[in-house]
Amino acid sequence: MDPRIREHAEVIVDHSVSISTGDTVEIQAPVVAEDLAVALYEKLGERGAKPSLSMRSPRADRAFLRNCDADDIELLDHTLAALEETDAVIIIKGSENTAETSDVPTEKTAARARANAPIQRERMGKRWVGTQFPAPGDAQLAEMSTEAYEAFVYRAVNKDWDEQREHQQRMVELLDPADEVRIVSGDATDLAMSVEGMKTVNDYGEKNLPGGEVFTAPVPDSVEGEILFDKPLVRQGNIVENVWLKFEEGEVVDFSAEKNEEVLAGVLDTDDGARRLGELGIGMNRDIDRFTYNMLFDEKMGDTIHLAVGQAIGETVPDGQPLNESATHVDMIVDMSEDSFIEVDGEVVQRNGTFRFEDGFEK
Amino acid sequence: MDPRIREHAEVIVDHSVSISTGDTVEIQAPVVAEDLAVALYEKLGERGAKPSLSMRSPRADRAFLRNCDADDIELLDHTLAALEETDAVIIIKGSENTAETSDVPTEKTAARARANAPIQRERMGKRWVGTQFPAPGDAQLAEMSTEAYEAFVYRAVNKDWDEQREHQQRMVELLDPADEVRIVSGDATDLAMSVEGMKTVNDYGEKNLPGGEVFTAPVPDSVEGEILFDKPLVRQGNIVENVWLKFEEGEVVDFSAEKNEEVLAGVLDTDDGARRLGELGIGMNRDIDRFTYNMLFDEKMGDTIHLAVGQAIGETVPDGQPLNESATHVDMIVDMSEDSFIEVDGEVVQRNGTFRFEDGFEK
Repeated sequence: MDPRIREHAEVIVDHSVSISTGDTVEIQAPVVAEDLAVALYEKLGERGAKPSLSMRSPRADRAFLRNCDADDIELLDHTLAALEETDAVIIIKGSENTAETSDVPTEKTAARARANAPIQRERMGKRWVGTQFPAPGDAQLAEMSTEAYEAFVYRAVNKDWDEQREHQQRMVELLDPADEVRIVSGDATDLAMSVEGMKTVNDYGEKNLPGGEVFTAPVPDSVEGEILFDKPLVRQGNIVENVWLKFEEGEVVDFSAEKNEEVLAGVLDTDDGARRLGELGIGMNRDIDRFTYNMLFDEKMGDTIHLAVGQAIGETVPDGQPLNESATHVDMIVDMSEDSFIEVDGEVVQRNGTFRFEDGFEK
Repeated sequence: MDPRIREHAEVIVDHSVSISTGDTVEIQAPVVAEDLAVALYEKLGERGAKPSLSMRSPRADRAFLRNCDADDIELLDHTLAALEETDAVIIIKGSENTAETSDVPTEKTAARARANAPIQRERMGKRWVGTQFPAPGDAQLAEMSTEAYEAFVYRAVNKDWDEQREHQQRMVELLDPADEVRIVSGDATDLAMSVEGMKTVNDYGEKNLPGGEVFTAPVPDSVEGEILFDKPLVRQGNIVENVWLKFEEGEVVDFSAEKNEEVLAGVLDTDDGARRLGELGIGMNRDIDRFTYNMLFDEKMGDTIHLAVGQAIGETVPDGQPLNESATHVDMIVDMSEDSFIEVDGEVVQRNGTFRFEDGFEK
């Protein structure tokens, strides 16, 4: 086995979800990632944990959704029951074909997300991590050879996470006490929102591996303005380009996309929360040096911000603050490297990708 | 996809576990059998069922067991919790390498079986089926090409199960009301047992697919005599040959094997019940025309009987009768085609493989 797979397993078990003796652990892996599941079982055996292994199969999901009646889609009680007895969840992504579910009707995908929202909520309350196995389909989507893509993935995940945490902490200290945030980029993006009372989280490879962002939750009703996401959104293998959203009192009141607009419409129609923001994130991981059409990596790139419509990440919303409880959570990215700035409480904290605590910052 | 896989899925869903709308279903599949999982998801979508998919990975199991401390092995609470909310379980076997767990210490395998006995018991109370995907490792073990093995498997599973049921029912009618059964073969096997009060089950492709046997439970303390299992036992990829057991008052008081005797010893040491019988079965499926070192098929062959040490099949033991609750269940086979007979309450019911209700029977 590639020794980088065992390293990856060790980072997951000891850093991301901090497994100790007696922990129940659920691993979800696609067939192409069985090697990583094996390496994780090795480590979990050493730690005295109690693992189970689910197969993520987009082929099976597609077969089910295309053949079912949308009205029959119900909560998976057995999956929820297992999760309630689980301490930590390890979700491994990895595709032989990233377009495997591209011919599933979006309304069925949305119906399933609604039916299984309790599972998603339960999982969010656990120790969990989402990570990547460098499979050929993901490499193809990134326009990379499988070997080059493996190097890219392992460089991003098997790294010094303490150093990354310290770098990001300086941005947390600016954003956490803030009330107002404004994102401006080119002519098409000028969006203001309140983050008052919300908590800013430093993501250094715990719930996402790779990590490399700081993120918080906008106050759901506070978002005003327009935004053009100039990095494409990949959804069930469909590439949605140049998503444009217009917000009034927090709600999406107008939208467009240059390609696959109906996929975007399907996301926004999931439920009420899907038309409001749930997350503001700032990418700070400069080891992720290229766009690979994979949100887990793309949203962490330096010189970018991202916003998610839908569910807020629980830990960013203190008790008593308004919480977006949508069944969906879809991130979209803006390139901030040129003609762009981020303002916090009226002060520019990043211009053209350079933070105010970095050399070369121009106020 | 091979159309025989879709046929197999239909037999499983509609015949073996009779799925209807709203049923929660757990599928367990090895990576090599993803095609069958996909075909099952198609059918389960059509039926309005609620499926989940577990990955059976002998590689992961081996990694876990070799690295864990036997004392740390505990019940998988999350797996049990899921099962309690499950209506039907579909277990798919299929190996890329049937010897994958051959270097796992048998005491750890036994410790895991003990720790997870509540899971095994819970599953036995559900609608469940164990079936086979024709994978290359299983073909190799059978000394067949993969293509010839596929033909063998699909002939055995995609068949007229009503006709098979009727053939077997004649043996059920002889065995079900019986008190005493005696198995005699060659010089080495003469074993007597009581089946008084136990129920004989007609297996026509429900819990096992292929089916093709009738089986009951010996009264645990009643077994007396000696038996030589002249068909090999395959356990974790190890082939155990010519298992010999001597019973007194139901208990194994002496044993031997010509190869891998320590594997047999590991089975018998699982717990108290592992030294007593849990099943007497009579193979009646003449479409299974060769021995393939795979118990799911071998035990159904015509002209054979099998006995299992360990756990009794629940439905063969009516309330109030003594029940073997061992954590293990290991079947072993005797060839009855020559110099052999089965006696029921003092009358010969099968001689050299021919039943008394068949042409050519010699009393």
